[in-house]
Amino acid sequence: MNKIITIGREFGSGGREFGRKLAELLGLPYYDREIISEIAKRTSLSEKYIQNIAEHKPVIPFPIHTGRTFWAVVPDYGQSVQSEQHNIIREAASKSDCVIVGRGADYILRELNPFRIFVYSSIESKMKRCRENQSNDYEQGSGAMNDKELAKKIEQINKSRADYYEFYTGQKWGDKANYDLCINTSFIEPGKIAEAVKFLII
Amino acid sequence: MNKIITIGREFGSGGREFGRKLAELLGLPYYDREIISEIAKRTSLSEKYIQNIAEHKPVIPFPIHTGRTFWAVVPDYGQSVQSEQHNIIREAASKSDCVIVGRGADYILRELNPFRIFVYSSIESKMKRCRENQSNDYEQGSGAMNDKELAKKIEQINKSRADYYEFYTGQKWGDKANYDLCINTSFIEPGKIAEAVKFLII
Repeated sequence: MNKIITIGREFGSGGREFGRKLAELLGLPYYDREIISEIAKRTSLSEKYIQNIAEHKPVIPFPIHTGRTFWAVVPDYGQSVQSEQHNIIREAASKSDCVIVGRGADYILRELNPFRIFVYSSIESKMKRCRENQSNDYEQGSGAMNDKELAKKIEQINKSRADYYEFYTGQKWGDKANYDLCINTSFIEPGKIAEAVKFLII
Repeated sequence: MNKIITIGREFGSGGREFGRKLAELLGLPYYDREIISEIAKRTSLSEKYIQNIAEHKPVIPFPIHTGRTFWAVVPDYGQSVQSEQHNIIREAASKSDCVIVGRGADYILRELNPFRIFVYSSIESKMKRCRENQSNDYEQGSGAMNDKELAKKIEQINKSRADYYEFYTGQKWGDKANYDLCINTSFIEPGKIAEAVKFLII
């Protein structure tokens, strides 16, 4: 089977853990934040800034009709970040089989027929995972939030991912029709699922 | 892991083939049309008649207000078939671990926390599978249909399954939130997927 594997994932569902484990089991390169670091190298923008715009759809400013729009005079870093992101994903897939997490890679690489996985879970499971895992900026903040605030934050991040995906692909994020396998990590450990998925791929 | 496995499936997606193979690999009893045969034994209704109503939501007749409605004076076989179906599914799951296909078993057995799988595929893949596999009444008729007629027929059957599921469960049929694993059989053989899923279950 084709071994270009793309993983869409709801924030808090353990998609990164699943993807990393699957890549390790298959002996394949794994691309997730590595893409952000590579964009930083190519654009001289900071990783933090890129992280903020790499999976957000662009904010289209209100067009002020004075001959030129405000839009036209602002440096369009968003577009160049997106463009670099697409290039890096295509380059990675052309070099070798690999696992790529997020960033609409399933759509960007559609002509290569990747194996498309989507990882999701219940809000309760996402909250639990966020509180247990403080490995990134979003999760680090979760300790200070009550349940309601944390649930809202998680939903906001996922809404932003959905908007980004839909803006760049014209497809509905998480719609099972766009994936080969959709995995609910509410009751099963992502690592255990990766071991089973390995048997489907090899 | 829990080995009560329920399989929702779009008509034409190979869900039955997948379920049978998975049951065989796990050495578990498999319930699909066996449920229809058992209802026939218990109710003395014909299997063909039961097949027609077992996965259809009831048609509520127009209430004629003459004191009693038409509904009230017609023998309600639909309800007794549903009731027997629920009993048989519960009895099967209480006897031993098993694989149960269709019939809202994921919802009926929700208190036992079954492992809930949904099998789906593209319309093109469903049509191909229908033309290749003539093992039931619906599929047998497909030889005489053109592509447009066959696609319409498949969509009608799946609409009926969705209506049935939603009527009895209050949940959306095929909504990934209600399943642990959603499997797209458009590009992978159901038997191959069953082998991988086995590793997730054992």
